[in-house]
Amino acid sequence: MTEMNKQWLLKSRPVGEPTPDNFELAESPVSEPAEGQFLVKVIYMSLDPYMRGRMNASKSYAVSAELGQPMTGSGVGVVVKSRHKGFAEGDYVMGMTNWQSYWLSDGTGVMKLDPARAPISTAVGVLGMPGLTAYVGLLDIGQPKEGETVVVAAASGAVGSVVGQVAKIKGARAVGIAGSKEKCDFVEKELGFDICLNYKDPDFVAKLHEACPKGIDVYFENVGGAVFEAVFPLMNDFARIPLCGRIANYNMTADPEGPNKLPAFFGDMLVKRMTLQGFIISDRYNRLPDFLRDMGAWVAAGEVKYKEDIVKGIEKAPEAFIGLLKGANFGKLLVQVSDDPTRK
Amino acid sequence: MTEMNKQWLLKSRPVGEPTPDNFELAESPVSEPAEGQFLVKVIYMSLDPYMRGRMNASKSYAVSAELGQPMTGSGVGVVVKSRHKGFAEGDYVMGMTNWQSYWLSDGTGVMKLDPARAPISTAVGVLGMPGLTAYVGLLDIGQPKEGETVVVAAASGAVGSVVGQVAKIKGARAVGIAGSKEKCDFVEKELGFDICLNYKDPDFVAKLHEACPKGIDVYFENVGGAVFEAVFPLMNDFARIPLCGRIANYNMTADPEGPNKLPAFFGDMLVKRMTLQGFIISDRYNRLPDFLRDMGAWVAAGEVKYKEDIVKGIEKAPEAFIGLLKGANFGKLLVQVSDDPTRK
Repeated sequence: MTEMNKQWLLKSRPVGEPTPDNFELAESPVSEPAEGQFLVKVIYMSLDPYMRGRMNASKSYAVSAELGQPMTGSGVGVVVKSRHKGFAEGDYVMGMTNWQSYWLSDGTGVMKLDPARAPISTAVGVLGMPGLTAYVGLLDIGQPKEGETVVVAAASGAVGSVVGQVAKIKGARAVGIAGSKEKCDFVEKELGFDICLNYKDPDFVAKLHEACPKGIDVYFENVGGAVFEAVFPLMNDFARIPLCGRIANYNMTADPEGPNKLPAFFGDMLVKRMTLQGFIISDRYNRLPDFLRDMGAWVAAGEVKYKEDIVKGIEKAPEAFIGLLKGANFGKLLVQVSDDPTRK
Repeated sequence: MTEMNKQWLLKSRPVGEPTPDNFELAESPVSEPAEGQFLVKVIYMSLDPYMRGRMNASKSYAVSAELGQPMTGSGVGVVVKSRHKGFAEGDYVMGMTNWQSYWLSDGTGVMKLDPARAPISTAVGVLGMPGLTAYVGLLDIGQPKEGETVVVAAASGAVGSVVGQVAKIKGARAVGIAGSKEKCDFVEKELGFDICLNYKDPDFVAKLHEACPKGIDVYFENVGGAVFEAVFPLMNDFARIPLCGRIANYNMTADPEGPNKLPAFFGDMLVKRMTLQGFIISDRYNRLPDFLRDMGAWVAAGEVKYKEDIVKGIEKAPEAFIGLLKGANFGKLLVQVSDDPTRK
């Protein structure tokens, strides 16, 4: 029986919120590797908020996904056939596998993984792109100093959870924001943030004020919207805003209703001498060796913890992704496409 | 006959645009210096856009001026009586003279001037706070590289004129924006910018596009409003926006009508990985020695030119200041309060 490759194709571009109709599941026989190629059976597919931008035709920081082509993204898998000298059958790898169950690679951008060092799934999580995003954004742009206050939303998520824990390692106060009591409890008790607030709480703004008695020095911006509105007035002089994402705006189809808050924003940025800097992690891979050294040690020592939200079955990818944009996940969202032989 | 000190007091706080009614001219006998003090006869009063912020009760980056007290500001004058060891009659000085014709000082923050080295008026212009603002904002935040494009508005003004000329010295393309053909001609022909555009031109947006064929790498923000709206879409990846002022918004009393452009602004900042940094020059006086060395040499060599707009008579200060906020001045705006014996 021919082995089949299941692929999620981008069927149509969403207007606003993506719907299941924007995706199409296709099946085709698995390709044979040519000379210099190898075939990867995907184990975990990573789902990340940035993928929403790739569904648009308009310019984002990543090249758009093409209509009729597989959704783009990274994943982790095992080499099942190889005609490439550098990769052998049984090797665990991380690469741009896209949303599919089998991936043919020539080795470009592929990283070999050692399951003895860390669970292979972490290569797209705490020890991968999301972890690096948190590390670079916080340390290189946010530059928290001892005793300063760092605020991050989506605090139980793949990026936010690392931001707060690294802030603590650097001696700062870590204030998390998340979308449920359960998430907040986890962020405080398991991740060790000083406090975590539920933005759905009717007293959220007042509680944030209380939680930041000395104001906010670093706001790691990954959500935008109402959270930004609550945070911004509390920013201190010389505060830094690493701008990583704005999940609240990803489905925006037009400028929201007025008033226009941009002029007042500039006024505050000036009066408080603040810095706002957008960054995209693919520009910053020069920091990968430092990151792997530090984060590898922190994770090994239990100083940085992580939580994974594993959805089983490639069929569920669109639904899980749509949920991710609404904060339905709890931890780093992965789709498990096939068995993980390394996990006990 | 007792010598009288004329002072412009802040009579009331403006709502929106300042009016002559917000100011009151008071006269009182000139004070005698006590031990450790000296009396300065003011020659030039500097008028600068930041003073608008000081007229507000609300927090600005400078302490508010007090109602019934003299308007704050710097100026240049000559010591006419001294009981201070460090300052002698006949010394020319620059300091926080405020809006008045005589100033009693204990020497705090006072700089002695050598009329043989540079005209004394430049101590509040190209060799003073406005020049330092341009120097620090452009070089430390804007960081223009050879071949990059730098855009600055109010290009014939005290700060903008220096920004473009220093950009040229650093090998960048300098694109100025100003409010009349006369100003633009001056900026191109006298100051040596590559091009200067009149923002009142109906084709301004299209002309700006043409003037920046390789996009914009540094936008020195000192005006905001329609100029910002025209400039921002042309910004390149990794562009820098030193935020020095927003004269178009200084008289704003409420957020302007919608739509709300802030979320889209964040989207662009992220996708293009741009940096916006507010700065206030009083935080950056550590750069004064470098500035005085470089700018002194550039002015002496004619590499940086400057233009002064001198209004005669302290009585005209409010009118001149109100005009400044509308761009009525042409060059660094000074009020000449008394004769300048150093000027031929």
